[in-house]
Amino acid sequence: MEQRVSLVTLGVADVPRARRFYEALGWTSTSDAGPDVVFFQAGGMVIALWRRAELAADSVVEDGGGWGGITLAHNVRSPEEVDALLAGAGAAGATIAREGAPTFWGGYSGVFADPDGHRWEIAHNPYWEIAADGSIVLPGG
Amino acid sequence: MEQRVSLVTLGVADVPRARRFYEALGWTSTSDAGPDVVFFQAGGMVIALWRRAELAADSVVEDGGGWGGITLAHNVRSPEEVDALLAGAGAAGATIAREGAPTFWGGYSGVFADPDGHRWEIAHNPYWEIAADGSIVLPGG
Repeated sequence: MEQRVSLVTLGVADVPRARRFYEALGWTSTSDAGPDVVFFQAGGMVIALWRRAELAADSVVEDGGGWGGITLAHNVRSPEEVDALLAGAGAAGATIAREGAPTFWGGYSGVFADPDGHRWEIAHNPYWEIAADGSIVLPGG
Repeated sequence: MEQRVSLVTLGVADVPRARRFYEALGWTSTSDAGPDVVFFQAGGMVIALWRRAELAADSVVEDGGGWGGITLAHNVRSPEEVDALLAGAGAAGATIAREGAPTFWGGYSGVFADPDGHRWEIAHNPYWEIAADGSIVLPGG
């Protein structure tokens, strides 16, 4: 298995509502796949929005209904960008779960929840390089 | 907010056990972050393994205990690769939730659950290009 993920699908209650939220953050979908699913090109991978009940059935899993042990993170280039992005997410309708603050690992981060409760940590990690195209390069990676 | 994800963290019960599973799939971690967390470089992003209880606390969320509406997918270049990868995952200790089969959207896929229940859809999507480095490029993307 190659060491990569192709697609992260977020199960949502209402696909058009979720799409409006991510578009309010500045995202655009160039892939017209109809009203039932949205694909966002995200670097070398794709983020999809699909109805959660369909995703659960397709994943052959019982839906616990809440959070399920996966959190996404989006790294930015400074603590100030963390705060600005959290403010923008709040204005777009996100819930701020944790305001930006220094972290135990020496960075700075906060967390928002999208309208379906999916968590995004917004982080500045001074030890990880962010390339011009947004790619993350681990030390030694 | 740039249209990308930097890090997907999988909350796991036992970090060394989870690490052994992904290493058995052929993954390697070049980042020595100690026994409590593992980082895998995955294209331009990172996949992390961390204790689920700590991830829940860090994400300021109550843990539903089960699946939480996020499924990862790993695309490959042929239906035969789907079957081979699922067989390898099963041999490494995954549970096969859905055997490889044609899908309603015109592709071919199956699903495995890792030792912590995280779902990976292994898919061949004949409409999406996979670059030599494993990147996915959406039509029009």
